[in-house]
Amino acid sequence: MARRQLVQMLDQALDGWLALACRGRQSGRERAVERRAPALQQKAKAALQAGLHVVCEKPLCFTTQQAEELRALAACQGRIVGVTYGYAGHQLIEQAREMIAAGELGEIRIVQMQFAHGFHSAAVEAANPATQWRVDPKMAGPSYVLGDVGTHPLYLSEVMLPQLRIKRLLCTRQSFVKSRAPLEDNAFTLMEYDNGAVGQVWSCAVNAGSMHGQKIRVIGAKASLEWWDERPNQLSFEVQGQPARILERGMGYLHPAALADDRIGAGHPEGLFEAWSNLYYRFALAMDAADRGQPAPLRYPDIDAGVEGVRWVEHCVRSADAGAVWVDYR
Amino acid sequence: MARRQLVQMLDQALDGWLALACRGRQSGRERAVERRAPALQQKAKAALQAGLHVVCEKPLCFTTQQAEELRALAACQGRIVGVTYGYAGHQLIEQAREMIAAGELGEIRIVQMQFAHGFHSAAVEAANPATQWRVDPKMAGPSYVLGDVGTHPLYLSEVMLPQLRIKRLLCTRQSFVKSRAPLEDNAFTLMEYDNGAVGQVWSCAVNAGSMHGQKIRVIGAKASLEWWDERPNQLSFEVQGQPARILERGMGYLHPAALADDRIGAGHPEGLFEAWSNLYYRFALAMDAADRGQPAPLRYPDIDAGVEGVRWVEHCVRSADAGAVWVDYR
Amino acid sequence: MARRQLVQMLDQALDGWLALACRGRQSGRERAVERRAPALQQKAKAALQAGLHVVCEKPLCFTTQQAEELRALAACQGRIVGVTYGYAGHQLIEQAREMIAAGELGEIRIVQMQFAHGFHSAAVEAANPATQWRVDPKMAGPSYVLGDVGTHPLYLSEVMLPQLRIKRLLCTRQSFVKSRAPLEDNAFTLMEYDNGAVGQVWSCAVNAGSMHGQKIRVIGAKASLEWWDERPNQLSFEVQGQPARILERGMGYLHPAALADDRIGAGHPEGLFEAWSNLYYRFALAMDAADRGQPAPLRYPDIDAGVEGVRWVEHCVRSADAGAVWVDYR
Amino acid sequence: MARRQLVQMLDQALDGWLALACRGRQSGRERAVERRAPALQQKAKAALQAGLHVVCEKPLCFTTQQAEELRALAACQGRIVGVTYGYAGHQLIEQAREMIAAGELGEIRIVQMQFAHGFHSAAVEAANPATQWRVDPKMAGPSYVLGDVGTHPLYLSEVMLPQLRIKRLLCTRQSFVKSRAPLEDNAFTLMEYDNGAVGQVWSCAVNAGSMHGQKIRVIGAKASLEWWDERPNQLSFEVQGQPARILERGMGYLHPAALADDRIGAGHPEGLFEAWSNLYYRFALAMDAADRGQPAPLRYPDIDAGVEGVRWVEHCVRSADAGAVWVDYR
Repeated sequence: MARRQLVQMLDQALDGWLALACRGRQSGRERAVERRAPALQQKAKAALQAGLHVVCEKPLCFTTQQAEELRALAACQGRIVGVTYGYAGHQLIEQAREMIAAGELGEIRIVQMQFAHGFHSAAVEAANPATQWRVDPKMAGPSYVLGDVGTHPLYLSEVMLPQLRIKRLLCTRQSFVKSRAPLEDNAFTLMEYDNGAVGQVWSCAVNAGSMHGQKIRVIGAKASLEWWDERPNQLSFEVQGQPARILERGMGYLHPAALADDRIGAGHPEGLFEAWSNLYYRFALAMDAADRGQPAPLRYPDIDAGVEGVRWVEHCVRSADAGAVWVDYR
Repeated sequence: MARRQLVQMLDQALDGWLALACRGRQSGRERAVERRAPALQQKAKAALQAGLHVVCEKPLCFTTQQAEELRALAACQGRIVGVTYGYAGHQLIEQAREMIAAGELGEIRIVQMQFAHGFHSAAVEAANPATQWRVDPKMAGPSYVLGDVGTHPLYLSEVMLPQLRIKRLLCTRQSFVKSRAPLEDNAFTLMEYDNGAVGQVWSCAVNAGSMHGQKIRVIGAKASLEWWDERPNQLSFEVQGQPARILERGMGYLHPAALADDRIGAGHPEGLFEAWSNLYYRFALAMDAADRGQPAPLRYPDIDAGVEGVRWVEHCVRSADAGAVWVDYR
Repeated sequence: MARRQLVQMLDQALDGWLALACRGRQSGRERAVERRAPALQQKAKAALQAGLHVVCEKPLCFTTQQAEELRALAACQGRIVGVTYGYAGHQLIEQAREMIAAGELGEIRIVQMQFAHGFHSAAVEAANPATQWRVDPKMAGPSYVLGDVGTHPLYLSEVMLPQLRIKRLLCTRQSFVKSRAPLEDNAFTLMEYDNGAVGQVWSCAVNAGSMHGQKIRVIGAKASLEWWDERPNQLSFEVQGQPARILERGMGYLHPAALADDRIGAGHPEGLFEAWSNLYYRFALAMDAADRGQPAPLRYPDIDAGVEGVRWVEHCVRSADAGAVWVDYR
Repeated sequence: MARRQLVQMLDQALDGWLALACRGRQSGRERAVERRAPALQQKAKAALQAGLHVVCEKPLCFTTQQAEELRALAACQGRIVGVTYGYAGHQLIEQAREMIAAGELGEIRIVQMQFAHGFHSAAVEAANPATQWRVDPKMAGPSYVLGDVGTHPLYLSEVMLPQLRIKRLLCTRQSFVKSRAPLEDNAFTLMEYDNGAVGQVWSCAVNAGSMHGQKIRVIGAKASLEWWDERPNQLSFEVQGQPARILERGMGYLHPAALADDRIGAGHPEGLFEAWSNLYYRFALAMDAADRGQPAPLRYPDIDAGVEGVRWVEHCVRSADAGAVWVDYR
């Protein structure tokens, strides 16, 4: 596949996002609405069948089975599927991953995650198409906030803690704006991992006054790491019994993997666009490598991440709809 | 009962705390060890029977039934029981209570609570008597962190949200330092309230690197309030769609009830000692009023708060020990 | 001038920056070294004479007289000169400007400014070309930190407070790394404005441990505004006697002028690249308008800003070199 | 002198403060008004002549000469004079002193100080006796904010940097509320120290919206320390090129001198009352030692600190009134 085609394909696959990223957000979001329908999954499938790489918004589709089919198809075709977990492109996520891998936290005990904003505290969907599809099961599938926001910190935990496996989970969900039922605008998910660690995800769109509230805190026997997407250039490293340390993007003391994507000196804030750009760069490298039959040179949110997000939402919904009971994760 | 007796009784009842508050903490804590044994409940009982008011550390005792007995006895004797939920003495807790009562948050939806420090990330109890009794079921009863730290933000929620009633709860608890089993050093508790709101308490002593991590965030349909015990002179008030506002202790815009206990101008930080002092003042007023057969002029953590703390821990433990299942709250 | 030429010119004029912005910063900065020599001013002059618009790093040149000549030349040629005060592209700077213009602060009394980082606490220039030219009078002109960092918050004050005029100033400067003399790595500048207000700029490259430390606080009779470039999506608005309010980029309560440049919803952090991009957009609009003989539709850092920066540094140096005495500003 | 007398004397000398610290602040402050008149200095003198130790609010008196006389008298009588620089009682001030003494910051270069609140942004003195005397030269002497707030961080710098000597200073002061003239409600003071370091004090009562704004940042060749009185339990330690570290009161990694005054475990906030209490403890120790002809066992704000504060204000005023010129410090 020629580089020119690749770029063209990227352009097409991402145009929903690009429209969003340009001025004139309203119309961009209206276009995004059309793309979240089940048609999204069909288009991804068609693209893979046509031998194209795919870069796709999450969730990929509505069921784990559909997601697994996409995975199989992508493997069969030798094409990549990139999933737009944009926050994972921030450099300090990479730093956290390396520090945890190096054992700086000790054995992992607890993973606290949340993405809890307040923008949908009221029934704003009546006047806002970008919210409307999110609370329509036909468009959004079986969940709202679990899929829309909860999967983001979940994916960060997958990046930081690649060995961790969920053993079982329990989810309770609510529709505080009644018209959203059966889709939830708040959910708590408890998780037990196979190594004895526990985790929690708070997914919320009615956390009045919160801008984003996306945070992840990984707690080990010796130390914790905490990251907040509204201050993405800082990472708090807290060794028990020592002063908390604030790591800053771009500094020489970071792991090389956390410096590779820098464009500008430390102190200058990089924002979400740079994080997305880092992802696209990785998508492009992965595509190029796949075209040459080689593995991706850099980690990126791939089809496995996409499948895992769909699976997690499915399990959460199953638990919640059964009365917030524990369900085995498989 | 003469004022002199009252003061003497106060002195005796509180001497564990006072010792703690003085220099020479080690020995003070050793004395506290003796007082947390079941003897504590017996002494409280004996004091009430002797016609004395009681000020007591929490938990009052190990079972709801014992707590109810103390309540009945106190009522019968016309004596008060003050429970040392010290953080509730901070003035901004009173401010939150008044703002919520005035409807400034709208209908309450979510209550997020946590007290999650990291000081017991390792098995420090081997060398530290103050930790030792906390992880010994004979001394501490059926729980460690649920009772020791979790009940604090729970009580703050009772102060701020006096109408809220727990309908059912679910708790999962872990002993990350294995030798602490069956007592937990981490617990998550999910709660459903009878009005449809939900809540959560994270109780933890292994949150490595966290100093205290006691926070409460009350989320309503219109706005949220958040308070953190490590910055007790600030209260964040976040109306959805408006800039977050940082309320400061001592300022004229606060509710009179939040100004009543001030000793010094705004800007000067008051700390935990002042909060405790505010409680003691309220205990003394309540004792004095009770001696004259009158109701307490100011709210204070009373026997009902004490009973509720014991009941909550009991339900959490029952849920956790049954496999982290939902249990009705009654 | 055709649009194509404009873009080409932009590309050329900005390539130092673009190189800097790309991967491979080291080499990019080496190229920048060449461009800061007096050649920069000659090139700008030549470009204007050739009928090209100019976008230029600051300082434009070494002396006010040179800067005035450029201004006259640009006016004569009908070409614009854009100066890369990149932080001024952050949307909340526009918000501050509008709030001050609307009288929300009351009469302005004090302007506190600083840009005080710590990256040059040691003599890093020995091994770092990007620092080397900054401390070489032949390349950097008569000052290091006054021009390199101090002019940034100074320009923010010009944007926020367009009516304010400096009446006299006093500057003291130091070379804590001795080899940098006569150029300073720290300077304090006091300013008196013609309306009775006072201001201060702390320019520093040896503020050990500080990432950037670029802040501006504008204090009026009723309220203050504070902005920090490391958290550019927040603006603190503090009315005396009311809770401080944290304004967030992208929110509907902002002035339309502060929303015009948004690309993405509130909560998502935009960083320095977006701020620069906002400037470039304004440069392009200004160029296009100039080509049609019209005024620029949006404010941008223009030749007046460039002249003012050079003039301020010149006065600071004159004051400092005369023993830190007051000098009239003209 | 018997212990009983000592305590009685303490009670009397401090009753202004104690009244202030109790409920009923208004009346307490009215009493303080009487004590700030020149009578204060006469009373201190009389007390020393009568063989009493003195604990005194600052400024001790209006002129350096008067202060020196008190110093001579105290020395002659063998009595101590304690000056109530209350913030200096916070434990982390002691930590900063020890870290600087141990060379952890490298050679000291810059000392940034400020105490800049906003409570007197308007002419509140009309209705507020506690402000009224502060802006009356007959009561307050030759300055308002320089003496009232500026001397506080100045004293912190004396504690942290006992070797530093001011060589010359320059002060500019303003009366933004016109009726306060000749007393200032804002002042900037620049200082040169004899070792080549520079410093700055911002004294302000019209910093609208600021609660206190008392901060000190000590910058060395290797690292900086920063402390803020509104968060007195934290101390930021920033080594250039390393993550900033947040030191917390009460932690085992602190210097023993910073732990000596603790009453309660780390994480629990101690406030201004505890800081004052630490001072009183030190005053009492010093009195007791003086009674036995011995030196004070612990550092406390003594007559030298009192003299220095008066001297600094005197020099600031002299500089300001001469047109904000440099004056030699002696």
